[in-house]
Formats: sequence, structure tokens, C-alpha cells
Amino acid sequence: MKRALPVTREENFPEWYQAVVDQADLAETSPVRGCMIVKPWGWGIWELIQAALDKRIKETGHENCYFPLFIPMSFIAQEASHVEGFAKEMAVVTHHRLKAQDGKLVVDPTSELEEPLVVRPTSETIIGDAFRRWISSYRDLPILINQWANVVRWEMRTRMFLRTTEFLWQEGHTAHASKDDALAETLKMLEVYRELAEDVLAMPVVVGEKPENERFPGADSTFSIEAMMQDGKALQAGTSHYLGTNFARAQNIRYQSASGELEYCHTTSWGVSTRLIGGVIMTHGDDDGLRLPPRIAPKQVVIVPMLREKPEDAELLVYCEALKDLLDGVTAFGQPLRAHLDKKPVRSANKRWDWLRRGAPILLEVGPRDMANNQVTMIRRDRLRDGDKVISAGLARADFVLHAPELLAEIQANLFAEAKARLDANIRADLKDFDAIGAYFGAAEEDDAKSVFKGFVRAPWARPTGAELVEVETRLKALKLTLRNVPAGQTSASGACVFTGRPAVEDIIIARAY
Amino acid sequence: MKRALPVTREENFPEWYQAVVDQADLAETSPVRGCMIVKPWGWGIWELIQAALDKRIKETGHENCYFPLFIPMSFIAQEASHVEGFAKEMAVVTHHRLKAQDGKLVVDPTSELEEPLVVRPTSETIIGDAFRRWISSYRDLPILINQWANVVRWEMRTRMFLRTTEFLWQEGHTAHASKDDALAETLKMLEVYRELAEDVLAMPVVVGEKPENERFPGADSTFSIEAMMQDGKALQAGTSHYLGTNFARAQNIRYQSASGELEYCHTTSWGVSTRLIGGVIMTHGDDDGLRLPPRIAPKQVVIVPMLREKPEDAELLVYCEALKDLLDGVTAFGQPLRAHLDKKPVRSANKRWDWLRRGAPILLEVGPRDMANNQVTMIRRDRLRDGDKVISAGLARADFVLHAPELLAEIQANLFAEAKARLDANIRADLKDFDAIGAYFGAAEEDDAKSVFKGFVRAPWARPTGAELVEVETRLKALKLTLRNVPAGQTSASGACVFTGRPAVEDIIIARAY
Repeated sequence: MKRALPVTREENFPEWYQAVVDQADLAETSPVRGCMIVKPWGWGIWELIQAALDKRIKETGHENCYFPLFIPMSFIAQEASHVEGFAKEMAVVTHHRLKAQDGKLVVDPTSELEEPLVVRPTSETIIGDAFRRWISSYRDLPILINQWANVVRWEMRTRMFLRTTEFLWQEGHTAHASKDDALAETLKMLEVYRELAEDVLAMPVVVGEKPENERFPGADSTFSIEAMMQDGKALQAGTSHYLGTNFARAQNIRYQSASGELEYCHTTSWGVSTRLIGGVIMTHGDDDGLRLPPRIAPKQVVIVPMLREKPEDAELLVYCEALKDLLDGVTAFGQPLRAHLDKKPVRSANKRWDWLRRGAPILLEVGPRDMANNQVTMIRRDRLRDGDKVISAGLARADFVLHAPELLAEIQANLFAEAKARLDANIRADLKDFDAIGAYFGAAEEDDAKSVFKGFVRAPWARPTGAELVEVETRLKALKLTLRNVPAGQTSASGACVFTGRPAVEDIIIARAY
Repeated sequence: MKRALPVTREENFPEWYQAVVDQADLAETSPVRGCMIVKPWGWGIWELIQAALDKRIKETGHENCYFPLFIPMSFIAQEASHVEGFAKEMAVVTHHRLKAQDGKLVVDPTSELEEPLVVRPTSETIIGDAFRRWISSYRDLPILINQWANVVRWEMRTRMFLRTTEFLWQEGHTAHASKDDALAETLKMLEVYRELAEDVLAMPVVVGEKPENERFPGADSTFSIEAMMQDGKALQAGTSHYLGTNFARAQNIRYQSASGELEYCHTTSWGVSTRLIGGVIMTHGDDDGLRLPPRIAPKQVVIVPMLREKPEDAELLVYCEALKDLLDGVTAFGQPLRAHLDKKPVRSANKRWDWLRRGAPILLEVGPRDMANNQVTMIRRDRLRDGDKVISAGLARADFVLHAPELLAEIQANLFAEAKARLDANIRADLKDFDAIGAYFGAAEEDDAKSVFKGFVRAPWARPTGAELVEVETRLKALKLTLRNVPAGQTSASGACVFTGRPAVEDIIIARAY
């Protein structure tokens, strides 16, 4: 049986990742530094993620709108920490015209803008400016909006989906009368992200609050969902920020309260991006390629007729068309099942591997014998192990159609359970001092690609701040480690802080990360 | 009865347009020159247009994907006419970093890019570059893709939705083995646009081919749909281009034919944009605000309880909630009906006008008397005439729910019929020479805002080309007129060309235009 990928996860995880992106036909590099081309299969996954999340964003009372791509340079300067965090690497538009000169195109120097524009790296400042205009009274609050947009951050090292110069995301922005309301909103959207990750992407996450040094620039508190990739590293998969009154003060976003006082609004922002697709790859992919949770598979059931370029092909196609028609009438996960009949004149064995690499959850191979017996032959992608495919032959066609929704639900649940077991089994909570943690993760110089799997460490800490926290960060950085988040739902802490030796106030997750 | 807008269409059409954009809460100007903020009601309309078109784009075999926002400057230079048409006014990214200096943010001069990047004004060049990599054999053809994206053209004079520096659109790009295939594709998508405009937006259009001087830069032929606004001007609402082998030659997009020859691909592109929303406003709006065809109304039925800030309000709200639940179970145009219950603590009369100005197709006002009789009171937006509302009181609630889908379909049909009658009645085909046409349209110096309604002129022409066409264009331009398109389906022509006096080969539409 044909081996699908040129490299296994164990041999070289980053190369394996790139091989899945290529061979599952998700995306490719573009001629523009750090920007990718998202191909139809990758984009189809993103459309399904968008639809699932957009529904939840609307159900929680938010409305979509759209703000400009460009932000005047002076806006970026308004919020001090925001400048620090974002002003460094952004695409800057300085001119608005090209002209021909000596047979070449050049930037027309007479078209220089009075004020440079940056391509939005995030939209707090331009949206805050609108909030200031929109809000005058407590009756105008809360304002609950979201936009789906492209953003640009000039990244030095890029990796498909995980870190690209341009990426696609949604950014929610809300304004409230009180801290309580704004914090409740921040946590509500964090829960929406957890549900999206776990129930839709089948990607289990650790939900918690980021430590001070990992907050969004300008936030009072930042919460995240952290997923564990198959190399043990953490992927920050979504963040939700309580911005306090920081942006409101910087941008003068105020409201008149019921008692007539002028008060600053409390604002929030929250976002997830195309990075989630990278998370799906590194959560569910195997050495044969991608495995897609059915909820986000652009095609959930793919029918491959075993064509032989003979006259009998016509009859086989009729049989397969009828099968597709039956599947089109089926509902899975509350939506029409997405079935696809692959009629391309390509050898069936190649087709099989094309679809398996792409991660289609169920492949139906249909040959003349299946047709004669009114049957189908099924390959379940989640049960494929290193090319050793589990084939269910001789399934009655009607039975398959009848049970397709359950099968898809079972595959969705299996993928989640597998990932959840890995996450749960790989959070070490028994390492009680920094040296033990360092020994567990091993030297930072080790070649990333060949490093042995290391998961998360959950360790007690005393929540150091200021200079002490900077020192913690420095010690961790030397081992390529970062503080991820303080898992939610902790009621008490025990033991000594692994960094300071003082009594711990809570546990925190430490990991290598993307 | 409260007058909705500060200005009528007759008083000043451009000011009326802007008043509708404001008062229907569709969009507002942003601090970024020429860029607008699309507000939730405007964005909701765009989402519905997107969904309707995306469905049709997929049904015709196209797949969505996503290409970079930035295009290297050298790419723009590849196709000569394209340079001519687009190289002039574009946003140019020249640097990738800001830095603090003397307490201010400035562009860091050390971050200058080796090659400037333009923000895409359209994506033929960057997508063609991918086509070159993707296509090697005739078996790879056709390639049928589409993307939903933001694009930027540095416009000097902007107007909300109609001409903005940044706008949202879809751009389809396809590659084919032959001219016949590519032309068929071009016309297929033109028909998709006609159907979208007429069946979804209720906006009748003239379908036809653009004359040579109005073609897309780099196209062999350009087709358009042209709608007539209520001031008689034409709005180009969608275009579909057959690009011949021009881009393929410039970018070396070739395939090996079945007989083994290397051939250039024939490519197409086609797009519609947020400009369509401007078309909807100027097709259906009246002196009370916007009127929305139900298919693209974010809320199709709005329930306004006549609240009095008294204890009885609670019971009234229960009655209205039950009504909304009933409507939520109804299907209109094959989708769940979009009902909305407006519970905001605002005076009911203000609410009424808010919703009427926004163009909600059906408003249900529900007071204690309606509740007592199990009834509703209905205002149909399409039957409102200059504030003289047509109220249907005493409708049984169950009857309304039962008939809501038909009512919405009737409103959709009415709006189309009204616009269609206006279009048909205002195409003058009896003006047989240029002087008569000039006299009909009147002097160009006339104040646009106060000009008397002028529709389209359909006149015979001999399809002049080259210098002769340039002269025609110049003569028309002096009267602020343009050639719109040659209506499809003409079988024969009669009479003399109004420009050259030679025997005509077909009729062409002449009009003032947006």
C-alpha cells in the first residue's frame, strides 16, 4: 500500500506538518513574502469553521459589521501599551500611485500620503474611535459587534496557517457600562471558543487566564484556550481580552450613567484565526496525512467509483449517482450531509490516496461487485493506521445511508476522545521545582525537529509580578518555555511556587509553544 | 405624520442618497480617507447578497479560495493594458515598521521593502501566477475559482458604497482550453449576475457587451449588467470579462493539449461588489428612506409592541414573543423567515420610523387592542407613499403568520415590477441622431443634483473603433454621457449610426452613469 507522506511525525514534526499542508492541498506559499494562498480544500474548512462560529457569535447577541483595512498611524499611538505591542512590525502604506519611468513601474514620489496608513494588525483603535461617536448614554450599552477580516503583522518567521504575514480572523469588540458586564462578556466568548474548539474541531483545550506578561497589549486581563499538538507543544487557539477602561481612556469612550455621571466604558475584544486550521492538522493529522473531524470536512463522504475505462463504467456511475442522491437527502449534525462523487478520470488508487491524505472522514469505494450486490465498501479515515486501512466491505447501500449520520458522529467523537486522552495523559503535575521541570523538558539547544515528545507541565506558582515575573520569563525562555495559562476552575492551591518558593496561589501551565 | 428624510429625491438626488445611507443606518464615513464603516444593517444586507451569490457560484462548479492581499509591484507591470488601467491609483506599501522617535511614532526608514507591494486593486496577476503553476495539461482544465475579498483603488472622489477606496467584492477567475469554453463561462456568470440582480435584489438590468473603450484593462471583451437608478443614471452593477490569452501570454499560463501541443489558456474574470447596495438604495429607496426587497432584508418582519411603561407591557410582550416564535417556524423563499421583536425601551412611534427608514418590508405594530382580539396591525413598507402609511388593522394573527411567505413574495415582486416598469418606460429608442440625443439629455453644465430625470437612450451605431471611437467618446464626454453596453439578443439593426451616419450594425445604450 502506497505510503502517503514523505516523512512521519516522529522523524521530523515540522517537515511532517508542511507535508500535510502540501499533500492535503490546503495551502501553498505565494510570491508575497509570508503570505499564503489558501486552496479550495483549506478554504472549505475555514468556511465551515466560520459558519459554526458566526452562528454562535450571533446567538450570543453580536452583530457583524466592517471597518476599514487601513488605520491612520496616529491612531496606533493612542494607547501606550498597544504601541509597544504592535507598532513594531506592520505593513505601512506611504504612497498612493505608481508611474511608468524608463519603461518600468516605480512609486510616484509625488503621491506620498500626508499621514502614513498601517494595514490593520488588529482593530481596537479604529473601532474604539467609532465607539466614541456611537456611545453617549448608558442606554446605548452594551455595544456588541464582530467583524470577519484580514489582518497583517509583519512576521519574520512564518509558517503556513500558524504564523503568516496576512491572516484571516474574526475580531469581536464590545463596550459595556461596568467591569462586571465586560468581564462576563469576555468569559462568555471564551466559552464560545472552547465549545468551537472541542465540539466542532474536536480539539480539546485548557481554558484559563494568561499571566500578566502574556496579556494582549493594552488589556487588563487576557484569557486563552490552549491546545496540545502531537509534538506536545501548546497552541494558543483563541484569546478573549478584558481591556478595562484603558482604550476608553485613551480614546475618550464615555457614557452618561442613569444618574447623570460621565463614565468610561469597559471594553473587550476577542478573536480566533486561520491558525485554527494549523491546530486541526497538528491535533488530528497522522502519517498518512490529514484527518478531518466531520463537522469541518468540506466533503464528509466521498464516493470513488472503480472506473476501468470500459463501457461498464456508465452503469457504475449511475449506481454511484443514485448513492450520492440518497446521501444528499440525509441530515448530519443538523445540516445536509456533504457527499461528493469523484468522477475525475484518474486511477482509482490515486484518488483513494488523494482523499485519504486530505482527511475526508469516509471514503466509499464502489466497484462492479459492490454494485451487483447493492453494496458499498467503506474506508473510515479515523481507523486508518499507517497505511493499514480498515475496510468494511459488503455493507448494504441502504444501511450505509441510514447510518451515515451516526457514523459521522462516531468519527467526530473518536477524534475528540483520542486527542482528549493525549492531552489528559500529558499534563505533568508532579514536578515540584524548577530544576525538575527543566530536566523534564531537556536542553533548549536540542533540535526541535527531533525532540522527544514533551507535553505540558502544571505547576504551582505564587503569581509573581513586575521584575520577579520578568526573571521567571527569562529563566523559562532559556529553556524555550513559556507560561501558557492558569487553568480555570481552581478552588485552592497547595505547595510552593516552582519559581519563587513562596506558597503557591494557583497552578499554571508551562510548555513549549507555537 | 413624521417626515422621514430631510430631503426628497426630487429636491436633491445625491443628498437624498446620502440621507438614506445615514438614516437607514447602513454605513458611515471613517477617519480613513475614502473608506467607510459598514454598520450592522448594511452588513446584514451584504451577508444576504453574499449568501445568495455564493450559492450560485458554487452551483455552477466554482470553488472558493483565498489569495494574498498584497501584489508585488513587478506583477502589475506584466500585462500592458492592465498597467495602463490600474497602475495609476493604488495603495503602495513601502515599509514594514514604525518606530518611536522624540515621543512620536514615525515610519522606520530602515524597514524599506526591496520591492514595494500594492494592495490588490484586483487579482488577475497574482492568481494568474498560481494558474501558471497549477496548470500543465488539458486534464487540469477548466480551473474555476472565486474569492471574496477586500480590494483598494485610490479613488479621488468617493461616495458611500458606489465608489470607495476600499470595497468588498467577489472576483471569479477561470482558465480554459479554448475560446469557446471561456466565452461560455463569461456569459454563464453574466447570467448569474442578471439573476442575482433581478431575482434577489429586485433590480432590473440591461444585459449586454461593453464597447471596446469601456473594456476591463487587458480584456478581449467585457459584458455588464446596467441598472437604471431613480435619477435615470446607469449603474454598472456587475461585469464579466473574457480575457482571451492576454494574461496567459503575459504570465505564461500554458497547457499541453490532448495532441501534445503547448497552448495558451483562455482566461476569464468576473465580479460584483458592495456597490450593489448603492444600486438597491437608488432603485428602491423613496422619500421615507430605504425599501428592501425581502430576500435581502436582514429582518423581514419586525414586531413593534406598543409599550406604555405600564404593568400591562409584560402581557403584551408575551403575546409578541409568541408571535415571533410562530414566525420563526415559517419558511420564506426556502429559508427560515427572519422575524425580529423590537423590545428596546424607545417610544413606539420612533421605533416605527426607525424600521420604516431602514426598509424592513413588514412592520407589525401590536397594541393591547390587537392582543385582546388576537390580531396584529400591519404596515407594508412597499405601500407606504410619502409618509402616507397604509395600515391593515385587525388582521387575525394566525392568518398573518399563514400568509407571511406569500406577502413577502408579493412585496419582492412588487418592488421588481415597479423598477422594471420604470426601466422599460425610460429607454428612448426614437432619437435618431446625435443632436437629438444631446438635446434630450441637456447641457452638461446643469447642476446634477437638480437635473430633470433622464433615462437611457438606445441608439443605432456602426461599432466604430480606434480613433473614430475616441472621437465618439469625446463628444459624449462633453455632455457627461457614456456608452453603456450593447444589449444582448439583437438579431438585426436598422437605421444609420448616430455617430458616423454609416449603416448601423446594432443598438447601443447611452446614458449618464455612476
